[in-house]
Amino acid sequence: MTGGCELKLLGMWASPFVTRAKLALQIKGLSYEYVEEDLGNKSELLLSSNPVHKAVPVLIHDGKPVCESSVVVQYIDEAFAGAGPSLLPADPYERAAARFWAAYVEDKLVTPWRQLFRVKTDEERAEVMRQTIAAADALEGGLKECSGGGGGGGGGGGKGPFFGGESVGYVDVLLGGMVSWVKVTEVVSGAKVIGATKTPLLAAWMERFCELDAAGAVLQDVGALVEYARAVQARFAAAATNN
Amino acid sequence: MTGGCELKLLGMWASPFVTRAKLALQIKGLSYEYVEEDLGNKSELLLSSNPVHKAVPVLIHDGKPVCESSVVVQYIDEAFAGAGPSLLPADPYERAAARFWAAYVEDKLVTPWRQLFRVKTDEERAEVMRQTIAAADALEGGLKECSGGGGGGGGGGGKGPFFGGESVGYVDVLLGGMVSWVKVTEVVSGAKVIGATKTPLLAAWMERFCELDAAGAVLQDVGALVEYARAVQARFAAAATNN
Repeated sequence: MTGGCELKLLGMWASPFVTRAKLALQIKGLSYEYVEEDLGNKSELLLSSNPVHKAVPVLIHDGKPVCESSVVVQYIDEAFAGAGPSLLPADPYERAAARFWAAYVEDKLVTPWRQLFRVKTDEERAEVMRQTIAAADALEGGLKECSGGGGGGGGGGGKGPFFGGESVGYVDVLLGGMVSWVKVTEVVSGAKVIGATKTPLLAAWMERFCELDAAGAVLQDVGALVEYARAVQARFAAAATNN
Repeated sequence: MTGGCELKLLGMWASPFVTRAKLALQIKGLSYEYVEEDLGNKSELLLSSNPVHKAVPVLIHDGKPVCESSVVVQYIDEAFAGAGPSLLPADPYERAAARFWAAYVEDKLVTPWRQLFRVKTDEERAEVMRQTIAAADALEGGLKECSGGGGGGGGGGGKGPFFGGESVGYVDVLLGGMVSWVKVTEVVSGAKVIGATKTPLLAAWMERFCELDAAGAVLQDVGALVEYARAVQARFAAAATNN
């Protein structure tokens, strides 16, 4: 499917950002070699492929590295335009709407959420949860817009159960990479981030997304992630006590 | 040049993000109506066009709003592909490199810099300046890569004095919107962000960028911005004293 080219993905199983890259590759039907990185002891290949951030995911295509999950997803969409469905629509206005909500997911949902397992006090944790839940609420409006209701915001978008319309698109992949972590966050915090009452469209989106073959093949096991998250949380708490 | 369509830009003169949109419109040779917003008393048009962020810039194209400066710049590039030079290259790998450095500018340079005039203590200000200067140093490496030297990182890129190669591109516009503010930051803080000794490529880039017709037409007057910045700083300091 890759037309004789070589695709290698440097990743780490628990990373939602790596999951985004895996989802895009899976949806496009591209075969690739997956290399699990030990982030405590990064490989020479990772360090030389991503000298600026030294982070996963890195997609290496015929020896050339592409870094940053959102950049990787767009690269897969454009470099393999002929393979599988397009993640970004062709229409410039619909592309702008997708990019608007993609930026929203990054800035308003992912940024506070990243702090959730690293904060030191219960107050800080409550504030981060408040921001994460508020972002999910606004995203519900985005999905309404993309699925046919509402107006304004980043613009029109397609019609259908996904941000991408009838089929999954760019925003679905970025958000989809986070799905197992959304469930973990709810288990660990005891608070609903996405729920049928407050965010019914997002709840339905998550259910449909999880039914996709690509999601089944790629999304992390929630139980394993809960264990991982608790270990991270304990490590940060211990570091806080020692300081 | 706009092919009979109507383009309206909602902006605020001091905003570097609005300047990005103006630069893209200018480079593409598109004529548009500019509407200055009073951010203390936002217009109904702004609030209804950007209900999520309620922020400028908003580009309204035939009645349809596009929000977020980086999304606006890409929209202008794609919706008016026939007008003026392309801001993003055609090659998927070069596009990925441009997006990588665009994300770098947003996350590592703009994010700390935004705090600069809002922090309350000298220590906080020093830390923000340290982060901003460190980001400029890393960006020097990005420019080296894009102008022909180096390797790795986000990938190849073009060859020439600009991030976009021989002519200005996406990263140049995003960074170019900040140029007057870089100068203001240096005046107000007394520290060099971009200097001929530490970041010679960026210093040469800034000089060349300022010589562009589009930059001359669009970039804010540094003296007026310094006054504006000092007023903002005083307002935040007064608020801190009152709390």
